[in-house]
Amino acid sequence: MIFQGEQHPGVNATPAETQGFRLNHTMLRIKDPERSLAFYSRVFGMQVMRRLDFEEMNFSLYFLAKLEESDNVPEDTEARTVWTFSQKGLLELTHNWGTEGQDDFAYHDGNAEPQGFGHICFSVPNVEAAQAWFDEHDVTFVKRADQGKMKGVIFVKDPDGYWIEVIQADRMAAMGD
Amino acid sequence: MIFQGEQHPGVNATPAETQGFRLNHTMLRIKDPERSLAFYSRVFGMQVMRRLDFEEMNFSLYFLAKLEESDNVPEDTEARTVWTFSQKGLLELTHNWGTEGQDDFAYHDGNAEPQGFGHICFSVPNVEAAQAWFDEHDVTFVKRADQGKMKGVIFVKDPDGYWIEVIQADRMAAMGD
Repeated sequence: MIFQGEQHPGVNATPAETQGFRLNHTMLRIKDPERSLAFYSRVFGMQVMRRLDFEEMNFSLYFLAKLEESDNVPEDTEARTVWTFSQKGLLELTHNWGTEGQDDFAYHDGNAEPQGFGHICFSVPNVEAAQAWFDEHDVTFVKRADQGKMKGVIFVKDPDGYWIEVIQADRMAAMGD
Repeated sequence: MIFQGEQHPGVNATPAETQGFRLNHTMLRIKDPERSLAFYSRVFGMQVMRRLDFEEMNFSLYFLAKLEESDNVPEDTEARTVWTFSQKGLLELTHNWGTEGQDDFAYHDGNAEPQGFGHICFSVPNVEAAQAWFDEHDVTFVKRADQGKMKGVIFVKDPDGYWIEVIQADRMAAMGD
């Protein structure tokens, strides 16, 4: 299916072999889990679905979801794990043990050179309310809603400096016009 | 809510102010849209929901979704845009015009130094069937299902070298045991 007005190079019909494929998560390395989990839970309302510790390899993984009221998450650990890895739009945070104590240690945000990864993005019901909420939590802004060319779009930084875009879906209709 | 067996530093209750927040997309810069759109549509079954061209700034954005049978995507462009930015688990590809013609141009995958972003991950119904499908399309593997410590987990590369993890949810239950 090609949507009206969308012309793209190299796009094929959806193959049957990809049925059931879902974009489950994005993985970012973090320096300090205490700081990052506080940020993603307090500011963005995410919850840790699974924490996995790999003691032989000295790292831990945290799988975070922003749950919806309609989500029926199993309490049992195995069932919850299967549920977690069946969802869309999760965040995986990787902590290599010990980095949190190294003063000069920092991860690369992908927007400074060398560039690659750009950002993750949350859709929110009201972008001004979100901006006020971020101010209450002393979140670092890259761009406020009234700044730059893309009015109504916010960019903030997470504790490692990764960029998080924040948008309001019903104000994006005019984008690119 | 803290799930059974999950102990985490710095985690708070979900604030009401974050109701309706959704992890909408992850943005990756790409060198060549023809190559990347062919890959994500043919191999992973994604479709372009919206293409936005910014002619003054010489870049284009492609918002890709892996649709489910139950998804009811509006055909009308404005309605489809609002729908797109209300979803979870999309991929945004950013093309800065002209990079596709530069022989020595490459984006940074985040796994080589300097590290940061790690990968995106698709959940699939059957990881061996997915592996055979990737072989049919000459996809580059970082790790096959039977290699390494994490059996049953695949890592492949996209055309820019970004890592894509591929997992089967019902085989992840024993992870971290």
